[in-house]
Amino acid sequence: MHAAWPTVAIVGVGLIGGSVGRAVLGRGLATRVIGVGRSPNSLAAALRSGAVTETSLDAGAVAEADLVVVATGVAMIPSLLDTIDAAARPGTLVTDAGSTKASIVAGWERRRKRRRSRFVGSHPLAGSHRRGPEASDPELFVGRVVVVTPAAATPAKDVEDTAAFWSALGATVFVMAPREHDRLLAATSHAPHVVAAAIAAATPPAAFPFAATGWRDTTRIAAGDAELWADILLDNSSSLAAALRRITAASERVLAAVEAGDRRRLVTLLSRAKDVRDAVGS
Amino acid sequence: MHAAWPTVAIVGVGLIGGSVGRAVLGRGLATRVIGVGRSPNSLAAALRSGAVTETSLDAGAVAEADLVVVATGVAMIPSLLDTIDAAARPGTLVTDAGSTKASIVAGWERRRKRRRSRFVGSHPLAGSHRRGPEASDPELFVGRVVVVTPAAATPAKDVEDTAAFWSALGATVFVMAPREHDRLLAATSHAPHVVAAAIAAATPPAAFPFAATGWRDTTRIAAGDAELWADILLDNSSSLAAALRRITAASERVLAAVEAGDRRRLVTLLSRAKDVRDAVGS
Repeated sequence: MHAAWPTVAIVGVGLIGGSVGRAVLGRGLATRVIGVGRSPNSLAAALRSGAVTETSLDAGAVAEADLVVVATGVAMIPSLLDTIDAAARPGTLVTDAGSTKASIVAGWERRRKRRRSRFVGSHPLAGSHRRGPEASDPELFVGRVVVVTPAAATPAKDVEDTAAFWSALGATVFVMAPREHDRLLAATSHAPHVVAAAIAAATPPAAFPFAATGWRDTTRIAAGDAELWADILLDNSSSLAAALRRITAASERVLAAVEAGDRRRLVTLLSRAKDVRDAVGS
Repeated sequence: MHAAWPTVAIVGVGLIGGSVGRAVLGRGLATRVIGVGRSPNSLAAALRSGAVTETSLDAGAVAEADLVVVATGVAMIPSLLDTIDAAARPGTLVTDAGSTKASIVAGWERRRKRRRSRFVGSHPLAGSHRRGPEASDPELFVGRVVVVTPAAATPAKDVEDTAAFWSALGATVFVMAPREHDRLLAATSHAPHVVAAAIAAATPPAAFPFAATGWRDTTRIAAGDAELWADILLDNSSSLAAALRRITAASERVLAAVEAGDRRRLVTLLSRAKDVRDAVGS
């Protein structure tokens, strides 16, 4: 079988990076997967879990790759892209898995004329509150959405190659501008994260025994890594603020109906929310 | 085997009522379970699912019961308790499964001196966004919390008998005053419900494809029945308002840290929320 990207380098081998490694190896899309990271322990775990075939503590190892996937926290991605660009062979396809896209893409584009590699931003919507290569899954991307976020100057060929990569892992690919991505993800991910954290933080300890399914579902993402999420929120602050304002306004409309004793209005508001939830599905 | 409550009547045979029926029959705690409801279809479904041994469209059927469990929506409970009290044999133990307790208990207590039955309010924290006797489960209460909420005038014996009933179904019983229950449940259930509905309602349709695990978890309870939830919220409006204010304040603290670019403060806030979430567990 012809491997589409014979050598893949994955920078940051956690849940997402590890799952990419296992997926490309399992599907015969690559024969070598070089795991690049800063922690020998994580790299050893990635080797053990079958996510990579070799490891390196040096990002210079991407010089051997046909495709590089950066799957670290968002705060590290811009400088890693610079390092990778300096080491990669000219024309190497580079993508990432960061949860925010506008600043990462803008940072790369600012020096587009001097770049050697072909970078196109990506965001696989396949996160979890679980972490590490031990939690990786070669089928993680099957049926999941990956958003590919080209800049205005990105050649169509680079977008197609990036989309083809994620499609080959079983994902449904959406292509949109980085700012549009950040605006939509503020509504579906970043603002819900803040609200989940707020519900958890506002729960008095005396109420902990009475936190049943509803509370557990509603606050589950608040168990996510605080440092990683801090960087995501900091990188999308204006869209986040707008999304949170909409949620607070919606919550205040419900409370106003409750305080007015307006059952009909309250049922209407709750029914509209239920319609959205039912439309999205389980 | 001696059946503790030979004949149990269940008024309202949905998820909770159906599960009570299957649990008492399965454990030999009752030999007859009379399902009382308004819908012949629901009663037939309850019979089919083994939740009841006989059915009645007339609440007067509770005259044959040793124990009556009212498992309807909260809005109907006060008047049903009056009807049941008028029909029940003197001394019959009556409890309910309503999600709010203060007004239900206060309504019964107002006429305590004229009551025939022994009512003690209960709230099994075993709700679900699923409904109906088809979704019932005889093990639904195993390891779950049931809050029993006596009034000041409730005899200790009645509290003990009610607690013993839920314990026999496998639940962990907490006893507390009705107002305290409503205050704590506002934080763990009612306010999260409003916020989940607000997140769903505030999500623009263009963002629906990007609603991944985090959004789905956070908004899951918004799929609950709008009419049932409207009545719960209306019945606990002041505690709900206070809990929502705390959540909004917590959310605003996070946003302020984001907008100030104060990463250290942001990580502290998210870590505190994570600590609460981790303390409560999955």
